[in-house]
Amino acid sequence: MAVELNRLSATRAAQMLARRELSAEQLMRACFARIEQRDDAVRAWVALDKAQALAQAREQDRAAVRGVLHGLPFGVKDIFATCDLPTRYGSAIYEHHRPPLDAAAVAVCRAAGAIVAGKTVTTEFASYQPGPTRNPRNPAYTPGGSSSGSAAAVADDMVPFALGTQTAGSIIRPAAYCGVVGYKPSFGRIARAGMKSLADSLDTVGGLARTVDDVALFASVLMREPRLRELDYDHKPRIGMYRTLQWRHTEAETRAAFSEAASALSRAGAQVRELELPADLCALVQVHADIMSFEAAQALVFEHSRHAAQLSGSLRALLEAGASIGAEQHAANLERAAQGRARVAQWFEQYDILLAPSASGEAPFFDQGTGDPLFCRVWTLFGLPCVHLPFHTGPQGLPVGLQAVGRAGDDHRTLAIARWVLNVLRPDGPG
Amino acid sequence: MAVELNRLSATRAAQMLARRELSAEQLMRACFARIEQRDDAVRAWVALDKAQALAQAREQDRAAVRGVLHGLPFGVKDIFATCDLPTRYGSAIYEHHRPPLDAAAVAVCRAAGAIVAGKTVTTEFASYQPGPTRNPRNPAYTPGGSSSGSAAAVADDMVPFALGTQTAGSIIRPAAYCGVVGYKPSFGRIARAGMKSLADSLDTVGGLARTVDDVALFASVLMREPRLRELDYDHKPRIGMYRTLQWRHTEAETRAAFSEAASALSRAGAQVRELELPADLCALVQVHADIMSFEAAQALVFEHSRHAAQLSGSLRALLEAGASIGAEQHAANLERAAQGRARVAQWFEQYDILLAPSASGEAPFFDQGTGDPLFCRVWTLFGLPCVHLPFHTGPQGLPVGLQAVGRAGDDHRTLAIARWVLNVLRPDGPG
Repeated sequence: MAVELNRLSATRAAQMLARRELSAEQLMRACFARIEQRDDAVRAWVALDKAQALAQAREQDRAAVRGVLHGLPFGVKDIFATCDLPTRYGSAIYEHHRPPLDAAAVAVCRAAGAIVAGKTVTTEFASYQPGPTRNPRNPAYTPGGSSSGSAAAVADDMVPFALGTQTAGSIIRPAAYCGVVGYKPSFGRIARAGMKSLADSLDTVGGLARTVDDVALFASVLMREPRLRELDYDHKPRIGMYRTLQWRHTEAETRAAFSEAASALSRAGAQVRELELPADLCALVQVHADIMSFEAAQALVFEHSRHAAQLSGSLRALLEAGASIGAEQHAANLERAAQGRARVAQWFEQYDILLAPSASGEAPFFDQGTGDPLFCRVWTLFGLPCVHLPFHTGPQGLPVGLQAVGRAGDDHRTLAIARWVLNVLRPDGPG
Repeated sequence: MAVELNRLSATRAAQMLARRELSAEQLMRACFARIEQRDDAVRAWVALDKAQALAQAREQDRAAVRGVLHGLPFGVKDIFATCDLPTRYGSAIYEHHRPPLDAAAVAVCRAAGAIVAGKTVTTEFASYQPGPTRNPRNPAYTPGGSSSGSAAAVADDMVPFALGTQTAGSIIRPAAYCGVVGYKPSFGRIARAGMKSLADSLDTVGGLARTVDDVALFASVLMREPRLRELDYDHKPRIGMYRTLQWRHTEAETRAAFSEAASALSRAGAQVRELELPADLCALVQVHADIMSFEAAQALVFEHSRHAAQLSGSLRALLEAGASIGAEQHAANLERAAQGRARVAQWFEQYDILLAPSASGEAPFFDQGTGDPLFCRVWTLFGLPCVHLPFHTGPQGLPVGLQAVGRAGDDHRTLAIARWVLNVLRPDGPG
């Protein structure tokens, strides 16, 4: 075999598994070999049960092929309940929590034949307090958060896919820092039942993988949309290059990636134009932050009122900021978000996708936290589908990329164009 | 004392508790005396722990008064997690489930001083399969569902308030059948963290009580909106009487309540007009049903794939109906709902509230199921605040009423006018 099994894409492995050219047990063993070799340094995982995962793999090897994810290992961010692995939400409060059920997203993947390799590290309740995970490209740096372990595990070839969630920038940012594809779908497209809620009007389930095809393969099951497995795109996309109003916060490597992308995509035949957007939408970064903190303060009342001493200072500060916002202000914030959403729809009359920064630049040092979700807040607020595309390298040798942002509900086209774009920008990447 | 303590309104009891004219223990004992006297017949409760509830009451009696619900007993629909009582979601699958946390709505009420008396019966996962609860007005009839136990417990003076949830008609319908006030807030106003999800874009937390002031008192805490405790309204409301496109399904008693309300409100000085609404919105009843079944099929994948034999036939049918709807159809349904929501907003330029049927008529017989949510589906789909107002009696001696429907986000005014309306229609009611 030319490629080590743990490095196979989910799409390729699924084909081989369906044809019985590869067994689920072989694949799971290869993933665990990689985990055992590397996880002391990376620390992507918070719960693993190798014997159980292998037993489930052997079960799939004996069973008929019923689903398109048959035999594929995947990681589950530890913000989702699992019926057979501990579920801690990144908090000592839930050290011994064993839920009696799988979250819907986990159950859907399992019902399609996929096998949970283990639970990946989340920051505390998917907010800002980091877990132990290191950036697998260089352990001196953060993998980003909150889907820290999912991004690191996928980047380090431990599993081909992992579930993540995004409330501000929790899929796109770790994807950017670790150099993998991150996909945050349109709001409301993947069931959230059984995930620990942080901010109900923002929380979005998505995933991370090494290729666009692979995130789309799992998404096709999670969203019950089979056409997501057909991403051929043979038009010339209209691409709006959008610096965003936070451009002054970008590092040189992000500016370089931006210019490189604009040139390469033009050369490849795309219609590429720089885009200006209404400045008043800039204020919505704060609207997003206020909606998130108000709703988090409600969602985590139990933990805050009963276990305050076990919350991090940064989370307590977030909850207290939220508790200081009045219900009428919150209602006004939600109304501004809804108006913004309606205006944003117009942009996509002229552009098929926008390309915008995913983060200010390369990953910050590990001890500086998980980075800033600044470049993701408004897209999450507007509920737009976002796909992080890794194709550039910064001065520290760490990954850099951009995110493709599509029209709300138009996930199929967004993924298809994102795939086209990444093939142009990273012609020799994994595929 | 003129009134038995268990019959006190929450508003009155809260005043007396705050002044220490009444102890939380006395009040809880009175509630349990009523429960012990009546629950063999009513079967509103699925989990009770009297010793624990009394201990928590004594704790409140010793503590300073910190919140506006200090010392008030309340019931919790068994679709919400509680850290110190079993949580079964109306399903044998979760017979032994003891969550490690309180759902947000429970935690918010407890943090404001309220005390959980117990868990009230829900239908299976808040869908259609009935629990054992009987209508307390006459045990031959259903209390309605899915908030069956909450409505029955409040109607039977066992507790002054109980939490409920509505995905189709699960607060308004049991409120109507049991003859209590039911309040379904605007979508998204009360945190859903820790409730078992049925349909993510529809599930709404609310409550049931014997007066509008009482639902508003708890809502003021749940929504962090203190002005909900001030419902004085001294204008003459513009009321749109809306028969709905399902009028042909109404029984004589609903038609009588409708005429009676129109006359009495006119006499009281309201501007009352009959209203016609666009017929194409009728089709949205089916859109609601399809969104609900699609999302339920996703939310309950774990239960359906692992425990199908323990699901009722009616729930399996709902999940299978949902599984047959494609993702593109679902996206189109969500889009139609959003467009409907935008159109509905216009109606409230001419009317302060609509008054419409809550159910076809009196409660059906117990063995005929929990009734049809037909008259509630579009209001839930549109996310509008709804308040059931009980003021009429049907031929079987069972309660009948109408629901006030307000503008999305305008819960304060909706509750204030609902209170004004109920005072006109039921001048001698509990208050």
